[in-house]
Amino acid sequence: MPSYTAPTKDMQFVLHDVLNITAAGIPGYDELEADFTSAILEEAGKISAGVLQPLNVVGDTEGCVLENGVVRTPTGFKDAFEKVKEGGWNGLDMPEEFGGQNMPQVMGTAVGEMFSAANQAFTMYQGLTHGAASAILAHGTDAQKATYLPNMVSLDWTGTMNLTEPHCGTDLGMMRTKAEPQGDGSYAITGQKIFISAGEHDMADNIIHLVLAKIPGGPDGIKGVSLFIVPKFLVNEDGSLGARNGVACGKIEEKMGIHGNSTCVMNYDAATGWLLGEEHKGMRAMFTMMNEARLGVGMQGLAQAEVAYQNALDYAKDRLQGRDVTGVKNPDGPADPLIVHPDIRRSLMDQKSFAEGARAFLLWGATMIDAAHRAKDADADGLVSLLTPVIKGFLTDEGYDMTVRAQQVYGGHGYIEEWGMSQYTRDARIAMIYEGANGVQALDLVGRKLAQDGGKHVMAFFDLVKGFIKENAGDEEFDAQYLEPLKAASKDLQAAGMYFMQNGMKNPNNALAGSYDFMHLFGHVCLGLMWAKMGLAAKRSLADGTGDATFYETKLMTGRYYMARRLPATAMHLARIQSGAEPVMGLEAANF
Amino acid sequence: MPSYTAPTKDMQFVLHDVLNITAAGIPGYDELEADFTSAILEEAGKISAGVLQPLNVVGDTEGCVLENGVVRTPTGFKDAFEKVKEGGWNGLDMPEEFGGQNMPQVMGTAVGEMFSAANQAFTMYQGLTHGAASAILAHGTDAQKATYLPNMVSLDWTGTMNLTEPHCGTDLGMMRTKAEPQGDGSYAITGQKIFISAGEHDMADNIIHLVLAKIPGGPDGIKGVSLFIVPKFLVNEDGSLGARNGVACGKIEEKMGIHGNSTCVMNYDAATGWLLGEEHKGMRAMFTMMNEARLGVGMQGLAQAEVAYQNALDYAKDRLQGRDVTGVKNPDGPADPLIVHPDIRRSLMDQKSFAEGARAFLLWGATMIDAAHRAKDADADGLVSLLTPVIKGFLTDEGYDMTVRAQQVYGGHGYIEEWGMSQYTRDARIAMIYEGANGVQALDLVGRKLAQDGGKHVMAFFDLVKGFIKENAGDEEFDAQYLEPLKAASKDLQAAGMYFMQNGMKNPNNALAGSYDFMHLFGHVCLGLMWAKMGLAAKRSLADGTGDATFYETKLMTGRYYMARRLPATAMHLARIQSGAEPVMGLEAANF
Repeated sequence: MPSYTAPTKDMQFVLHDVLNITAAGIPGYDELEADFTSAILEEAGKISAGVLQPLNVVGDTEGCVLENGVVRTPTGFKDAFEKVKEGGWNGLDMPEEFGGQNMPQVMGTAVGEMFSAANQAFTMYQGLTHGAASAILAHGTDAQKATYLPNMVSLDWTGTMNLTEPHCGTDLGMMRTKAEPQGDGSYAITGQKIFISAGEHDMADNIIHLVLAKIPGGPDGIKGVSLFIVPKFLVNEDGSLGARNGVACGKIEEKMGIHGNSTCVMNYDAATGWLLGEEHKGMRAMFTMMNEARLGVGMQGLAQAEVAYQNALDYAKDRLQGRDVTGVKNPDGPADPLIVHPDIRRSLMDQKSFAEGARAFLLWGATMIDAAHRAKDADADGLVSLLTPVIKGFLTDEGYDMTVRAQQVYGGHGYIEEWGMSQYTRDARIAMIYEGANGVQALDLVGRKLAQDGGKHVMAFFDLVKGFIKENAGDEEFDAQYLEPLKAASKDLQAAGMYFMQNGMKNPNNALAGSYDFMHLFGHVCLGLMWAKMGLAAKRSLADGTGDATFYETKLMTGRYYMARRLPATAMHLARIQSGAEPVMGLEAANF
Repeated sequence: MPSYTAPTKDMQFVLHDVLNITAAGIPGYDELEADFTSAILEEAGKISAGVLQPLNVVGDTEGCVLENGVVRTPTGFKDAFEKVKEGGWNGLDMPEEFGGQNMPQVMGTAVGEMFSAANQAFTMYQGLTHGAASAILAHGTDAQKATYLPNMVSLDWTGTMNLTEPHCGTDLGMMRTKAEPQGDGSYAITGQKIFISAGEHDMADNIIHLVLAKIPGGPDGIKGVSLFIVPKFLVNEDGSLGARNGVACGKIEEKMGIHGNSTCVMNYDAATGWLLGEEHKGMRAMFTMMNEARLGVGMQGLAQAEVAYQNALDYAKDRLQGRDVTGVKNPDGPADPLIVHPDIRRSLMDQKSFAEGARAFLLWGATMIDAAHRAKDADADGLVSLLTPVIKGFLTDEGYDMTVRAQQVYGGHGYIEEWGMSQYTRDARIAMIYEGANGVQALDLVGRKLAQDGGKHVMAFFDLVKGFIKENAGDEEFDAQYLEPLKAASKDLQAAGMYFMQNGMKNPNNALAGSYDFMHLFGHVCLGLMWAKMGLAAKRSLADGTGDATFYETKLMTGRYYMARRLPATAMHLARIQSGAEPVMGLEAANF
C-alpha cells in the first residue's frame, strides 16, 4: 500500500529561501512569515496524509456508481469531504466576505499539491468548485455572488465546468447546446455535455454547473458562446433549495484512472440557467480563469510525480536485489537494496530533480498570478500567461513520465494494482489531456503567447535569465555546474524562437511543427532556472552556516543532476525545431 | 471500437526489398519466395483481424476469473484458440517431426507481430507455449521431446515459464523453491512462483510448467538453480493424461493491463517434476532461449505501437476539429480533420516512423537468429546477442511511448475505456517490465554484451554501418537526408562506447550510470540504419520504375522524418552519458 508524506520542508525552502515571498511586495505576502506558512503546510500535510491518501486506492478500486440518477462516491469520500469542509481548505485563498481566508494563491497552490498528491480524484471535487467559484467571483453580479459563493466557498455546494460536447472539445465554436431566453432574465439550456468531472455525486447539497451554450441568433462559431450558471437545485429567494432543475447525469464514463471522480455525461433538458458575464462573451469569461486552472493541472502533474517518487524511493531502499558492483553494501543481507544500482539511481534522480524543480516553477508561477491579481502587475500577468502553457504541458508530460519511471522501479510489482503504482500512472495520464490537451498548449504557446504584446514577455523572460546569470556569476564551480548549462539551454531556446520568427512568416507550419518541442525546450529552461535559483539559495545558506547543511548539500547535488542530465535535452529539441515543417508536413494525408 | 489491419505490404517490403531474404543463404530461406510469404502473411492477417482483434476489448473488460481452482478465460477465447490450433500457427517455425512446418523464425516473427497487435493478452498463451517448447527442444531428452512437443506444438497443451518468486525477480540466486530428488529420477518441487503468465486456464488439456528451483545441497546462489518440467497433469506411459500434479493457481493478479491473460500465483506442493537439461544449469538452459524470448517482447512493443497508430490515424482523418492555418481543407464541413494540424502530424509521424523502423529492426534480428541456428553463423549469433537488449529495451520503451501518443490524438476520448486506446497503453506497459526489466536490459548491454568476445560484435556493428554508408554514398540528396544523419548518430554511439572504455575501468559506475541512455542511443542508430536501408530500397525501386511509386515515396518521406526528427536524440544521450557517474551517484542513499 503506498504512502505519502507532505514535502513541507521543500515547500518552505522554495517559499522563503528561493522566492523570499515576504519581501516580494505583493499585497498579502507580508503576512506569510515562515512560522505562519509552516503551520498551514503542516496542517494541510496532516489531512493529506491522514485522511485523503488512505482513500486513494479505495477510490480507484470502487469508483463511482450511478443508480437511479444518483451517483454514489467511494466509501469514505463523504466523511473525508466533511473534514475538508471543516478545515475551511476550499476557502483558503477566497475572499473573506464569502467565508474565505483571503490568502494568496501561492498558498493555495502549495496546499493543492499536497491534496492532489494524496488523492487526485477526490481533490477534483474541491478543485472544480474552486474554479467555478472563481469564475462567479470574476464575472458574477453581486446577487449571483451572494447566492452562490458562500455555499461554494464552504463546499456545501460544489461546482463544475461544462465545455465539451460529443463532437467538439478543442473546437468549441461547433457547440450545439443552446440557451433560449425565457423572458424573465433566465434561459432554458438544452444540450449534452460530456467529460464533466464531479458532474453528479452525493457529497454536497447542490451542484452549480457553469455551462457554455449558444443563444439562438447570436454570432456563428466561438463568438456566439455564452456562459451560464445552472444549479442542480434552483435556489429560492431566501437561499433555501427549491425545485430540481432539468439537468441530469446520463452516464458515468469508465476511464483509465481517476475512478474516484465521477466523470459524467450531463443532459440539459430546458434547464433553467442565468447568464454569467456578458452575452456571447462566454469564452472570455472562461479564459479569465485559464491561467489559474491550467496552473492547477500542471500542479497535478507534479503531485503525482512526487507521490510516485516517494514510494519508488521507499521501495528502492527496502527491496533487496543484486549487489553493488563497486562493493557489497549490505553484507548481512542476501542482497543489496535496489538503490545501490546506478540505473535505479538515475531513475530516482530524474524523478527527484523533476519534482523539486517543478515545485519551484509552480510556486513561482503562483506568485506571478498573485502579483497580477493583487498588485495589478501587468508584466507579471504577461509573463505568467506566456508560461502557463509550459507549466501545464511540460509539467504534465514530464509528471506522467516520472510516474512511469516510479512504477518501473517496482519491476513486476509495478504492474500489479495491489501495489498502487499503476494508479499513479493511470491517474497522471488525464492531466496531459484535460484543460486543453498538451498539443493545444503548445499551439497556444507558439501560435499566440510568443508574439503577444509584440513579444515583450518572452523578451522579458530572456532578460530575466540573462540578468540572473550575470548577477550570480563569479563562483567557478557554480558557474560550471549551474550557470553555463543554463546559459546554453537558454541560447537554444532563443535560437528556436529566432527560427520561428525567421521561418514562421513564410509558412506558419515551420513554427507549428516545432511547437511541441518548443514547449518542452522552454520547460527545461524554466526548470534549469529554478534549479539555478535553488542552488544559489542552498549555496548561500551553506556559506552562512545556517540551517540543515545536509538538506542544502542535497539540493546542490540534485540541481547538478538536472543540469548535467536533463538540460541536454534542449539541443535535441532545437535540432528538431530547426528541421522545419517539411519532414512533418511533406507526406500527403492520403498517403499515410 | 478499435480496428486492426495487418501490415502485410510493409512486411513484404522489409522481407524482400530490404532484407532480400531468398538470397540470404540461410537454410530454409530459399523457399521464402514473395508469393509464398505473401500467402502466409495474408492468412495470418485474416485470423488476426477477423478472430483475435474483436476479442481484444472483451479480454480487457472481462479478464480471467479464478473459481474453485479453475481459471475461466474471457468469452470467445476458447473458440479463437481452437482456430489458432486448426491453422497450425504455433508450429509455423517448429520442426516437422513434432508437427511443425519448420519455417524460419523470421516468418514466426512477422506472424507474431500480427497476432500480438490484434490481441496481446490472448497471444501470450501461445507465445509462452512456444517458448517452453523451444526450451524442451533445446534441452530435453528424446523421451521428453516425444512426450511433450507434439502436444505443445499443436497447442493441445500449453506451457509456462516460472522464474519469479515474491522476494526475487531479477536476482534469482535468492530463489527458495526447492526440488528434492525422489529416487526415481523425478523431483518433488515445492515453493511459490509469482507473475506466471497463462499459469492456469481452460483452453488446453494440460499445462506444462517449466520451473526454476534449487536442488538441496547444490551450489549457493544462481549457480545452484536447475530447470524442471512440471506438468499440471502427469503423463502416462501411453501419452494419456494421468493424475493431477501438486501444482495449483493460488490467485490471479489484478493488473494494469493484459487482463485477458491469467497472471497467476502458482503454488507447488511437492509437485512431481523432471530435470530439463543438467543439474544446476537451469539458468543456462533458460538463457538459451533468451534472445528469442526478448526479441518476442520487443515485438510486442512494436505491435502495440502499430495497432495504436492505425487507430490514431483513422481518428485523425475522421475527427473534425479546428482549421488548417494555411488554408481550409474541408470547406463543406464544420471543421477540418485533425490530421491537418502540424502537431497531430508530428505525433503520427513519430508513430509511423517508429513502427516501420522497428519492424525492419525486428525482422533483421530474426534473420540473425535464423543464421545462428540454421547456419551456425557465430558472427550473426554474436551480433544478435549484442542487439537483443536493444531490441527488447528500446522497442518496448518507445512502443509504449507511441501508444501514449496515439491515445493523446483522441483527446478526452483517449482516456475513456470505451474507445479502446487506453488498453493499448495499459497492455504495452508490461513489455517494459517482463522478460528482464528494461534497466536490466541496459545493464546486460553495457555490463556484458559490449565487451563480449573482446568487443568484437560492437566493432562488427560499427563496421557494418560504416560499410553501408561508404557503399551507398554519392547521391547528394540521399547523403544529406539519410547518410549524414546516420553517420553523426553512429559517431555519437562510438563516442559513448569510447567514454565507457576510458572511464569504466576506474569506476564501473561511469558506464552503468549511462547504460540506459546508451541503450536508447543504440536503438536510434539501429532504427537510423534500418531507415537508411529502407530508403535505399525505395529509391532503387523508384529508379527502376517498378511497383507502387507512392508506396516508395511514402517510405522515403517517413525515413526522412526519422532522420530529421528522431535521430537528434543521440547527441542528448551522449551528453548525459559523458556526464559520468558523479551526478547520478553523488548523493548518498540516506540523503534522498
